[in-house]
Amino acid sequence: MNHLSMYGSSLALLTDLYQLTMAQGYWKQEMVETDAIFHLFFRKPPFKGGYAIAAGLKTAVEFLMDFEFAADDLAYLADLRGNDGERLFESEFLEFLRGMEFSCSVDAMPEGSVVFPQEPLLRVEGPLIQCQLLETALLNIINFQTLVATKASRICYATQGEPVLEFGLRRAQGIDGAISASRAAVIGGCSATSNVLAGKLFGIPVKGTHAHSWVMSFGSELEAFEAYAQAMPNNAVFLVDTYDTIEGVKNAIKVGEKLRQNGYEMAGIRLDSGDLAWFSIEARKMLDEAGFEKTKIVASNNLDERTIRSLKEQGAQIVVWGVGTHLATAKDQPALGGVYKLSAVRKNGGEWEHKVKVSEQRIKISNPGRIQVRRFWKNKASRFGGQGEFMGDMIFDELMGEPQSNIIVDPLDETRRKRLEGSGIDMLKPIFREGQYVGEDVIQDDIMEIQEHARHMLKYFHDGIKRFDNPHEYPAGLEKNLYDLKTRLILEARGFEPETSSSW
Amino acid sequence: MNHLSMYGSSLALLTDLYQLTMAQGYWKQEMVETDAIFHLFFRKPPFKGGYAIAAGLKTAVEFLMDFEFAADDLAYLADLRGNDGERLFESEFLEFLRGMEFSCSVDAMPEGSVVFPQEPLLRVEGPLIQCQLLETALLNIINFQTLVATKASRICYATQGEPVLEFGLRRAQGIDGAISASRAAVIGGCSATSNVLAGKLFGIPVKGTHAHSWVMSFGSELEAFEAYAQAMPNNAVFLVDTYDTIEGVKNAIKVGEKLRQNGYEMAGIRLDSGDLAWFSIEARKMLDEAGFEKTKIVASNNLDERTIRSLKEQGAQIVVWGVGTHLATAKDQPALGGVYKLSAVRKNGGEWEHKVKVSEQRIKISNPGRIQVRRFWKNKASRFGGQGEFMGDMIFDELMGEPQSNIIVDPLDETRRKRLEGSGIDMLKPIFREGQYVGEDVIQDDIMEIQEHARHMLKYFHDGIKRFDNPHEYPAGLEKNLYDLKTRLILEARGFEPETSSSW
Repeated sequence: MNHLSMYGSSLALLTDLYQLTMAQGYWKQEMVETDAIFHLFFRKPPFKGGYAIAAGLKTAVEFLMDFEFAADDLAYLADLRGNDGERLFESEFLEFLRGMEFSCSVDAMPEGSVVFPQEPLLRVEGPLIQCQLLETALLNIINFQTLVATKASRICYATQGEPVLEFGLRRAQGIDGAISASRAAVIGGCSATSNVLAGKLFGIPVKGTHAHSWVMSFGSELEAFEAYAQAMPNNAVFLVDTYDTIEGVKNAIKVGEKLRQNGYEMAGIRLDSGDLAWFSIEARKMLDEAGFEKTKIVASNNLDERTIRSLKEQGAQIVVWGVGTHLATAKDQPALGGVYKLSAVRKNGGEWEHKVKVSEQRIKISNPGRIQVRRFWKNKASRFGGQGEFMGDMIFDELMGEPQSNIIVDPLDETRRKRLEGSGIDMLKPIFREGQYVGEDVIQDDIMEIQEHARHMLKYFHDGIKRFDNPHEYPAGLEKNLYDLKTRLILEARGFEPETSSSW
Repeated sequence: MNHLSMYGSSLALLTDLYQLTMAQGYWKQEMVETDAIFHLFFRKPPFKGGYAIAAGLKTAVEFLMDFEFAADDLAYLADLRGNDGERLFESEFLEFLRGMEFSCSVDAMPEGSVVFPQEPLLRVEGPLIQCQLLETALLNIINFQTLVATKASRICYATQGEPVLEFGLRRAQGIDGAISASRAAVIGGCSATSNVLAGKLFGIPVKGTHAHSWVMSFGSELEAFEAYAQAMPNNAVFLVDTYDTIEGVKNAIKVGEKLRQNGYEMAGIRLDSGDLAWFSIEARKMLDEAGFEKTKIVASNNLDERTIRSLKEQGAQIVVWGVGTHLATAKDQPALGGVYKLSAVRKNGGEWEHKVKVSEQRIKISNPGRIQVRRFWKNKASRFGGQGEFMGDMIFDELMGEPQSNIIVDPLDETRRKRLEGSGIDMLKPIFREGQYVGEDVIQDDIMEIQEHARHMLKYFHDGIKRFDNPHEYPAGLEKNLYDLKTRLILEARGFEPETSSSW
């Protein structure tokens, strides 16, 4: 159940070179005692949607728990050369890396959380050098799993609760591209995967029956189905489109009758090409007329949430959905643009200094401080089946103490504000405290429990955020005093006197 | 230098469940002695381009060399249950898997080869069960690396020989999604990667300097640049856009002057936001005027081949290109639709039987036989700098013996034909013979040699295939007799009498 246990070697070098050159720089500048706070967040939900599902945290925790430079890592670094042919890294710095022990504090949103732009999925606080060395791997792990969990959530929304099987291994981006995708797809709502290694690593149910090549290996399709029924009577789903789909359904029915005589039920048929709506409707009629009302119709072939919605609108009789490439690679947006930004610095145990990264694009300006997200809940009659609804998220700065205002401000438009009332839940939970793991209550081992958490929470959000196009924008804004502080820091960085001085 | 050496565990379960259920089916049908031939190929070049660059073979070879089921793999399979709660796999079948030794013959295109639709990148011949069990992992490995090598080739074509640095780790799809991408990007032409682990595994040059957070950690940008110059005088590339790009260039120049006093040259500046064309032109003027003619301008920020072409058209003064997300995830088409199709079956050492997979879509019909690709070369005055040019590829069936015709036929349009003359090179080379590795002369250890091979071969193709839009379609067709055989098999499968009987 440990994702990274499949790696036999250290993953400390899973980083961009500049993290290491900067680390040496900080070390040479005698900034080993400088602390920092970084946040990992995204700026826009993927797929032009209204939300994302946080995923990857458990993998990230495994990475952090085993974070250390192995002897061969250091030997490799010792060999690297700069532009002038001289060694890039000094021996004393490599000695420093050898002795370095992970000592950061990490807070994170539990996996399966519904998350919005500007909200940290992860907060890392500790020695600046360590925060920096962890950046790239944390982004790699969290970005991709969050992307795929979100894609899966959309696809499962489209199937309206009908099971989705993840089939993407053959087209996925690398070995772990497939394995991470299988894990995240389940968090987002998928029922099973075809990927046996992912099944073994994470305890995900594995599914699959036979391919076209099975049918082609026999003299005829009927012979092939009979052979499969004989070999796997308790797992008989027949792929009916190798030659002619309608003939294939007829052959499946013939074999289904034999199976029944032997005390087994034909579990399903699978369509993998052609007009899936029409074929599924025809196949359903044929199966029902032959007395196979319980035989399920499974379909696959370049499906995604939009195709599935369209098939359902056409009355397709598909009840199990196999989704491969579009899910495992998040085809319409294959990367989540998550970033990891410095928000505060503290030298030698002194005072925290707030930091913002200015940019010409407003959306790229980071938030200062030690950010926490408080999600407000209201008990009210809801048309979404629950007894309450989430009303909005307040992004606030713990360095400023408890929020002094109940007003949130849209970070991109100061005139859009909302007053949040009711009770709030703090979304970031402690995972590490100065290097010690304290996340037992947050990190969930059972992946199906994470899926259930995501499914459950999603129910209490306005249905509009789940729309595929132009979704409702859930209010997630900066607490008023944080907004004011940020404005002041931006103006200062741009060389303007702040017009108002914040009370803080 | 062994990619899969980073995995501590067996990768035999890196497969779709149905490969294992089919394997048990074949085993129960007493088809253990049935042999098969499969080919791995794609149907359309990615990115709407005119070609692909083969990659991933060495990783695939590593996978095949270590292919065996570990005890804990078999224990996991023994625990799986079918729809009725009974065990999915029989103990005797799992014993069979335990004793199974890889015994296939494999032929493949060397990495870095220029490859076209319908041409096998890989041919696997041997026990049907083994061929099937290898399918998914081979597709996973070859599909993705070929995709990224092709993307990199296009990007390097756009930079016209200027170095491209691969920066994609943070947004890549999983850990190996990043590592495989770094490897393939170099095969396609990239000069270096930011990914240190990929550098260590494959001997790729690693590059990088500092991030925005470095600048933000200091009191001012000037202070930050000075500190960096002090820490890494031989690797000084300054990121100038943390606050104000023009001010950043001025600060870089100030620090460059100090560096020079200390006997070092400022290597470069990096732009990462804003109008890259305009800023690079302004920065170039400023650097030149200050006597820093040799300081290079590096740029990054969502670059791909089209943005790079556009920047060059605008006169951008960028000479080093950092490409991340678009390259590592092949953003505009994140999956290569490579498939692995059965083309012949032989029972108990008897005669080979040709097989085709029929489909309503002509392009999805597979080719029968034991396919080889012969590439024809003509010595002729060429406007592409070389002394010759590749004229066309003949896809032929070795089971039919040496090609009896010099005519190739477009598999999608029988009226499009071409007569190939000159000398031909057979593109698929032996890698394994009945399980024994014989690929020493084909598998290249030095990744830069593979890059050089790709670069060199690409020169001898018509420039039109490298166009981004509506590229020239290089002639790659079925040898006439193979075309006729395929037609006959399709008609038979569809229940028609073939009108002409082939001479074969």
